[in-house]
Amino acid sequence: MPVRVLGFDGDDTLWHSETRFHVTQGEFRELLKRHVPDANADARLAETEMKNLSIYGYGVKSFTLSMLETAMELTQRRIAAADLNVIRGWGKRMLMEPTPPLDGVEDTLRALSGSYDLLLITKGDLFDQESKLARSGLGHLFLGVEILSDKNKETYRGVFQRRAIKPEEFVMVGNSLRSDVVPVVELGGRAFHIAYEVTWAHEEVREEQLPRDGWRRLETIRELPAALEPLR
Amino acid sequence: MPVRVLGFDGDDTLWHSETRFHVTQGEFRELLKRHVPDANADARLAETEMKNLSIYGYGVKSFTLSMLETAMELTQRRIAAADLNVIRGWGKRMLMEPTPPLDGVEDTLRALSGSYDLLLITKGDLFDQESKLARSGLGHLFLGVEILSDKNKETYRGVFQRRAIKPEEFVMVGNSLRSDVVPVVELGGRAFHIAYEVTWAHEEVREEQLPRDGWRRLETIRELPAALEPLR
Repeated sequence: MPVRVLGFDGDDTLWHSETRFHVTQGEFRELLKRHVPDANADARLAETEMKNLSIYGYGVKSFTLSMLETAMELTQRRIAAADLNVIRGWGKRMLMEPTPPLDGVEDTLRALSGSYDLLLITKGDLFDQESKLARSGLGHLFLGVEILSDKNKETYRGVFQRRAIKPEEFVMVGNSLRSDVVPVVELGGRAFHIAYEVTWAHEEVREEQLPRDGWRRLETIRELPAALEPLR
Repeated sequence: MPVRVLGFDGDDTLWHSETRFHVTQGEFRELLKRHVPDANADARLAETEMKNLSIYGYGVKSFTLSMLETAMELTQRRIAAADLNVIRGWGKRMLMEPTPPLDGVEDTLRALSGSYDLLLITKGDLFDQESKLARSGLGHLFLGVEILSDKNKETYRGVFQRRAIKPEEFVMVGNSLRSDVVPVVELGGRAFHIAYEVTWAHEEVREEQLPRDGWRRLETIRELPAALEPLR
């Protein structure tokens, strides 16, 4: 069955996301160093984020609240409100930043949108993701948008049902082996993995958990049209 | 054309939501009174929420960040981190509270689910809404869930297209005239309005903006099955 629908991840596949978290986290580390020089702010923030994931979910607002919580805890609530206000401001800055498409994205999507139905399939905060798509200028190339609270077999199955897609006619493209490759291939779909310069530790997958077939790695999104040719 | 699909709003239609915001806002008012006795904390918080709506969207995390921002501003960043930590904790408490269905909801939905397709159509934070549905124990009665970044003609039209629903075969049930009644009736669907004890000012609609036909008010969700009879 020929491939008819292409799903694209958004963050770090179509536009930068993780680098911005890294930049902010660097600022967070520096700010906390002034208060608690010996603390491992990165480790504590990662712990707080994981603890809060089942309450807050993914996204910038969750990250902001976890930074504030970590700063309060590490300083035993002795940090000044002015410093907390700076942290709060970083979150808002992240949400307002422009979202230019990554290199090669716009040309490639435009070329593919004539031959395939394109879906944006991302996880995270609904409002933030819709806003990023709008700011990216790519919205008109997509037939639809699916924002999932998490990307796993169950939620991909929901997308297939809602949109009457057979797994065999679906290809997912993204930078996360855990979210974009493994669940799709397990359902009988195919996937292309395009690594991004930075991977959030939470998204990493051990080599032995990867499926043998049904997916491959691309160096850049520009290779996608040729890689799809044999699947038509 | 007989009615085939019923859409239900979640917050304040199937379970309490706004009362919890009110309770927290009362605590916020009291806490700030100790720092700035003359300030109008409610008005300032409402202003901050409206200013942040286009950046944060709806939901408890947005509300928490807006409370923190308002507290920092009103005290000119002189509030103690311990107090900010209390405010931060209120947000988490709201997200973790149980979500029992409102009176009559469970029986009514169970009765209707045999004759109609039920959709949950809410706005707000994706993660929070999915979590509330799970905690409510009502999830199995719904054919699907649509969480929208806002409820307007455009986003309802998207639901109709995605799910191949004709407006004439659709009835929306909810507590907000602005979000659940006006856009649906304007698209050619029908609606039942069930007032909740408290309405967020943002959701209020002036009488002259209400459509004349295509909707009516119910006192309680228990009246819904009988009200639907003439539409079958």
